[in-house]
Amino acid sequence: MTSRIDGSKIARRIRASVADRVAEAARSGRVPGLATVLVGDDPASAVYVAAKRRAVREAGMRDFHRQLPERATQLEVATVIDDLAHNPDVSGILLQLPLPAHLTAAALIDRIPVAKDVDGLTTASAGRLARGERGLRPCTPSGVIELLDAEGIELRGACVAMVGWGELVGRPLTQLLLRRGATVSVAHEFTADLAAVTRPADIVVVATGVRGLVGPEHVKPGATVIDAGIHRTSSGLTGDVRAAELDGIAGRITPVPGGVGPMTIAMLVVNTLRAAEWGAERQAVPA
Amino acid sequence: MTSRIDGSKIARRIRASVADRVAEAARSGRVPGLATVLVGDDPASAVYVAAKRRAVREAGMRDFHRQLPERATQLEVATVIDDLAHNPDVSGILLQLPLPAHLTAAALIDRIPVAKDVDGLTTASAGRLARGERGLRPCTPSGVIELLDAEGIELRGACVAMVGWGELVGRPLTQLLLRRGATVSVAHEFTADLAAVTRPADIVVVATGVRGLVGPEHVKPGATVIDAGIHRTSSGLTGDVRAAELDGIAGRITPVPGGVGPMTIAMLVVNTLRAAEWGAERQAVPA
Repeated sequence: MTSRIDGSKIARRIRASVADRVAEAARSGRVPGLATVLVGDDPASAVYVAAKRRAVREAGMRDFHRQLPERATQLEVATVIDDLAHNPDVSGILLQLPLPAHLTAAALIDRIPVAKDVDGLTTASAGRLARGERGLRPCTPSGVIELLDAEGIELRGACVAMVGWGELVGRPLTQLLLRRGATVSVAHEFTADLAAVTRPADIVVVATGVRGLVGPEHVKPGATVIDAGIHRTSSGLTGDVRAAELDGIAGRITPVPGGVGPMTIAMLVVNTLRAAEWGAERQAVPA
Repeated sequence: MTSRIDGSKIARRIRASVADRVAEAARSGRVPGLATVLVGDDPASAVYVAAKRRAVREAGMRDFHRQLPERATQLEVATVIDDLAHNPDVSGILLQLPLPAHLTAAALIDRIPVAKDVDGLTTASAGRLARGERGLRPCTPSGVIELLDAEGIELRGACVAMVGWGELVGRPLTQLLLRRGATVSVAHEFTADLAAVTRPADIVVVATGVRGLVGPEHVKPGATVIDAGIHRTSSGLTGDVRAAELDGIAGRITPVPGGVGPMTIAMLVVNTLRAAEWGAERQAVPA
């Protein structure tokens, strides 16, 4: 029997636990706050930002939102970020991607101070992850780790196949898994024989953006399969894994929707709390 | 027949090519310079620093050296680094490790400006590597890539086993190999079955600090074996690979000494030139 990993339930538990800690912090007058920055009117981005803001408010945190027009200049966006960077009420800053094509995303992301980088996407945060230093980790990768931990799956010594080596999931998650002691094999678009990489693995994590890439031919019986893909189809949301075909083969699998997706938002809420705590420590230490 | 990869020869060619470019830069009055900082009297460190300074001078570059006593304070070392950071004649700064135990190495390394970080060990350089941005890469990992390139070994689509995930070699090299399109499996101290990871690989890179760890039981016939280990024994230098036992099994192998070792110094010379070019560009651009 293949069991489904209930990401929605695990995410709810994490968000409730953050809400408790926020309520405690609020009693000493310190309420964490997240600033979301949305440039333009991409409908999908608007939906994501609305969900993030809702999660933040539900956790009892302050919701700062800045909406900029599609035609906003690099300088205008930079000025908004700098303003939020200097605002002591703003614990974390999230610049919603993708940006309109005329803007340079990397330069704008790197204006976010490392202690407010709740998406973990700045060069400084990437360096801290690579060096194992304190920092905020990208939300989806840390959500995958939390899922595996919640399921009681041992990572030290486990064989993990990481399918996909993209900036948002595969690259940071490879490092998080290695830091936890997993033996990690990374496959990607240039991998000739994907099954040769994935079949020996105890855990297969898929984040490729290729719908239905992974199926029963790739998975060892009893393995755990984590699907970080998301695709909108006429029959609803689906992932990078052919989940129905893995029924009875995989030991456990994350559904899409309701698997990794809810964890991403839960980890954003966690990161905002961590950013607030980190910011408070930095203020407490004399310069 | 197993062929030996002649790192000394490849390193000499690279250093000669750098010397040509340095001579050209010198005609326009721009001579790159490396500053080595050595704290204390560790004999091995003194030998390494002397070899680096010699290579720099042989390439026609300026050799700045700062020797500090074993009892130097954190502030004293930091002041020396800051001084070199502001000196426009110094293209690159190398802080020789290990430092005496009373000093905090990470904080001192991170004082080196990213454009002068010829060892590629700062958090900023690690972030630039992780994000695929311009930056100076650590010398031994980039030396391994150069060796493989010089041998005409295709990395895109190749299966590489990276044995060892240390800060100086395994971590950055994993990223460099993935950026080049290799399918990479990373093994380390928590890997239960090392041979299962290494036997399928076309290229096995070993950087563990464990003498003689890898032997014929780990290597597919015809595979390329790169040994980044170095151990001083009563019978001379030896590596992490039992090279004699791989004769007739491996397709190609790097000897110790004369394989990866000379490449590390060659890449330091390359990085110093790159740092000088990068520094010149930054000065040419109005702030």
